[in-house]
Amino acid sequence: MIPVVVNGAAGKMGREVIKAVSQAEGMTLVGAVDQNPAYIGEDVGEVVGCGALEVPLLNDLQGTLVMATQYPTQGVMVDFTHPDSVYENTRTAIAYGVRPVVGTTGLTDKQLSDLTDFAEKATTGALVVPNFSIGIVLLQQAAIQASKYFDHVEIIELHHNQKADAPSGTAIKTAQMLSGNGKTYNPAQVEEQETLTGARGALANDNINVHSIRLPGLIAHQEVIFGASGQTYTLRHDTTDRAAYMPGVILAIRKVTELKSLVYGLEKIL
Amino acid sequence: MIPVVVNGAAGKMGREVIKAVSQAEGMTLVGAVDQNPAYIGEDVGEVVGCGALEVPLLNDLQGTLVMATQYPTQGVMVDFTHPDSVYENTRTAIAYGVRPVVGTTGLTDKQLSDLTDFAEKATTGALVVPNFSIGIVLLQQAAIQASKYFDHVEIIELHHNQKADAPSGTAIKTAQMLSGNGKTYNPAQVEEQETLTGARGALANDNINVHSIRLPGLIAHQEVIFGASGQTYTLRHDTTDRAAYMPGVILAIRKVTELKSLVYGLEKIL
Amino acid sequence: MIPVVVNGAAGKMGREVIKAVSQAEGMTLVGAVDQNPAYIGEDVGEVVGCGALEVPLLNDLQGTLVMATQYPTQGVMVDFTHPDSVYENTRTAIAYGVRPVVGTTGLTDKQLSDLTDFAEKATTGALVVPNFSIGIVLLQQAAIQASKYFDHVEIIELHHNQKADAPSGTAIKTAQMLSGNGKTYNPAQVEEQETLTGARGALANDNINVHSIRLPGLIAHQEVIFGASGQTYTLRHDTTDRAAYMPGVILAIRKVTELKSLVYGLEKIL
Amino acid sequence: MIPVVVNGAAGKMGREVIKAVSQAEGMTLVGAVDQNPAYIGEDVGEVVGCGALEVPLLNDLQGTLVMATQYPTQGVMVDFTHPDSVYENTRTAIAYGVRPVVGTTGLTDKQLSDLTDFAEKATTGALVVPNFSIGIVLLQQAAIQASKYFDHVEIIELHHNQKADAPSGTAIKTAQMLSGNGKTYNPAQVEEQETLTGARGALANDNINVHSIRLPGLIAHQEVIFGASGQTYTLRHDTTDRAAYMPGVILAIRKVTELKSLVYGLEKIL
Repeated sequence: MIPVVVNGAAGKMGREVIKAVSQAEGMTLVGAVDQNPAYIGEDVGEVVGCGALEVPLLNDLQGTLVMATQYPTQGVMVDFTHPDSVYENTRTAIAYGVRPVVGTTGLTDKQLSDLTDFAEKATTGALVVPNFSIGIVLLQQAAIQASKYFDHVEIIELHHNQKADAPSGTAIKTAQMLSGNGKTYNPAQVEEQETLTGARGALANDNINVHSIRLPGLIAHQEVIFGASGQTYTLRHDTTDRAAYMPGVILAIRKVTELKSLVYGLEKIL
Repeated sequence: MIPVVVNGAAGKMGREVIKAVSQAEGMTLVGAVDQNPAYIGEDVGEVVGCGALEVPLLNDLQGTLVMATQYPTQGVMVDFTHPDSVYENTRTAIAYGVRPVVGTTGLTDKQLSDLTDFAEKATTGALVVPNFSIGIVLLQQAAIQASKYFDHVEIIELHHNQKADAPSGTAIKTAQMLSGNGKTYNPAQVEEQETLTGARGALANDNINVHSIRLPGLIAHQEVIFGASGQTYTLRHDTTDRAAYMPGVILAIRKVTELKSLVYGLEKIL
Repeated sequence: MIPVVVNGAAGKMGREVIKAVSQAEGMTLVGAVDQNPAYIGEDVGEVVGCGALEVPLLNDLQGTLVMATQYPTQGVMVDFTHPDSVYENTRTAIAYGVRPVVGTTGLTDKQLSDLTDFAEKATTGALVVPNFSIGIVLLQQAAIQASKYFDHVEIIELHHNQKADAPSGTAIKTAQMLSGNGKTYNPAQVEEQETLTGARGALANDNINVHSIRLPGLIAHQEVIFGASGQTYTLRHDTTDRAAYMPGVILAIRKVTELKSLVYGLEKIL
Repeated sequence: MIPVVVNGAAGKMGREVIKAVSQAEGMTLVGAVDQNPAYIGEDVGEVVGCGALEVPLLNDLQGTLVMATQYPTQGVMVDFTHPDSVYENTRTAIAYGVRPVVGTTGLTDKQLSDLTDFAEKATTGALVVPNFSIGIVLLQQAAIQASKYFDHVEIIELHHNQKADAPSGTAIKTAQMLSGNGKTYNPAQVEEQETLTGARGALANDNINVHSIRLPGLIAHQEVIFGASGQTYTLRHDTTDRAAYMPGVILAIRKVTELKSLVYGLEKIL
């Protein structure tokens, strides 16, 4: 049984992680930490609405990590906190011999490099994962495979209209992953004319067109459409709930115990 | 039985019309005209590949129209020719008392107005139809209905990559049909930022976003997506073959015989 | 301002109605009733999580209806309660001169007939609405329109895998609405053979094929696909949140004040 | 330059192969064979409508194969003929030292085994490919990858209504490829009830639901939908023209020259 500490347990993602860890096989929730003063001391299971778990929500990360080291097998800390504290949290976990699984965004390249060195010296596994969606990683890997055989591809991403930035980070990342293989995609067959500017979307890496739809009622969706004479091949991922990320978190908790250094990205452990 | 003359019978659309008319109930093919010298005198059924029809392909429109007036019921001429000749063809048909169904594009507003007057004076029905797709008209009518209840809508049109202009004429027309009801669509919930220019597509009438996808393997497709809190409603039309236009042509042939003046657009007779 | 009472205010739908009514123009929440003893006496806004509304949650329907009649304009009661109580609730509201908008399912034909008579005698508007989704009603109306021009149609409905019955009630209703126009849909072109039984789905009214997909991650989705030579026309509705029903509820509250008798179905007031 | 012979050159697939080979780099069309007497002796480029290619269409396979062996590099024969002749054709090609790429269906297991032995003894590469669609193979490989992480999957295949059998061979094959990994897919969350028989589709290998849509206007389409809590992942392939198979044929011609034995299936050379 892997002892697991969740840092940021009262946040939106942290709450899902508490539920997921408490139901997963081969692991046990031993600590829950949050700096939000509202729930300190309460049973974290009651706070997240899944019934009592006999684990109090505390605001003392170090004490909780120390406690996690009392178990016979090495512990794991899942971190969904804040860009301001994630570096310190991760470093502290490694220092205490608890392996970090980091979902918090905002680590700088310098910080990531420092943490990599630090994990290396400590011979401790660590995982930093910007996107825990196994489905999106599978889509991206399938798209890379398809890009070897198709020269034409466009990306459509669709999100609720409270999302401010376009294209989505995932769409930009997907285009990056399809680029750099020496291809310029979508070679023109005719001279295109936009009678209304923007109709053909944005151009991402290597001439991949990206289109962003924003409508209420949508959640988070991405399509990659490959085309060739007489056929199209479409990969689509729909996220309808934060629960979608939990299989990736649980997988990361299991895999980090087998690592000896810091690894970046869910695709590395699939 | 309605006697039907097809003008432009050896062209891509004309060939489909020959096949469709020869199989439709309540009408009979009596003449086929084309200026392409390659097939003059041949049986038009053999030319279009549907077996002998006992109707020769001729290049004499007036003679064919005169012949069509010998039947007990009033005749119809379907015209899929060329922007340069469509005005003259249509005027000639009206003059000979044969009702025109015009699919050829390129009539100017002035020409259309002239033909309207001319049909009026002759008390002759005439139909000018820029798009014979019943499916697209149904989609547009359903979209107009939906626009009374939804404030958010975007259009995605997808075509083969030999299409030069973007957005498609049908998408622009659809946006026009949704506009003018006093709404500005897609009121912003957040301040949008395009990190790659063009991601959010083109803005058509009344702030409707339009996105154009161009890939080999696609044919001609259009989606209109309405969104509201907790739901989306999507109308999609896929054209996979020119045969899609034939039910509209057949319907037009039947309806033009009931008209007393020039009518513009398939939606008027549905 | 229409004074509105919500009956069943602590239930899943009732909570959404409280939020929707408190934000809608032209109406004001004046009463909230629920038989669940957990929250009696608390501010209903706090209970549903949208901030204080100065309306206590009570368990006395009659007293609340009496109170609602003190306002200068006639009141409306929205009922999302239970099949066992909906008949009594509706009758009581009419008796007190408060117009009912009923979303609770389970009224028998006999009960519906009684309520119709009762509303008639009282010259009181009443609305009974089995499905408040404006999007689904629009889809069904567009499908009826399309069925006049297409002879081939299949329905695909997709739901989460906790839904036990297949096909969905909405799919069955949609097939019923497309039937009865004298058509037998989907005339065979070839002799079909199912090498695996069930592949071609269920046959609903007038030979319409219906296919039910059940997967976790799905919510509630329905597609109606019409086909003809060279084209398909697809209508799709996606429900992603209970909020989808609120525009229908708000519209019903407004429209019931203009009615003089009981009306059944959202489609009647669109 | 690989010298290529096309056997069955006047058939639907053969015509596409003639066009594709004549335009592909690194290969040259040297022979075209067909038993259809209509076009014997004519320039095969004229027959298939791509302009003169200076290669006559003949009905003598052996003579053509001998001629193909006169080139400095080893030749390839593409066979799209008939189940009755494919075994003999393939054996003959191997005997003459011309590598076969076989798209004709209908080889029995015994015949396939014989040809495998025969190619082995001759140390000659050979390819037998039941489906030349690279897109479908990519979809199937991506689906196999996804099946490691998802426990719920359904297949929807959509074809024109002239297709008699359901489900499609490709859908059955796809289900087979997802099976045998120890999983029973789609474990029930509730006790399902079909109120209309067949709604939940057919059950293929390992409890994979398969649904077959048949409508005019459709061509050949397949969707594989994976579901998990909060997400769905959809792979879709659309074939809109026989040209879709040509990249697979061209790839096979190139790859067969590197083989030393008979290989079955396009997936082996991707």
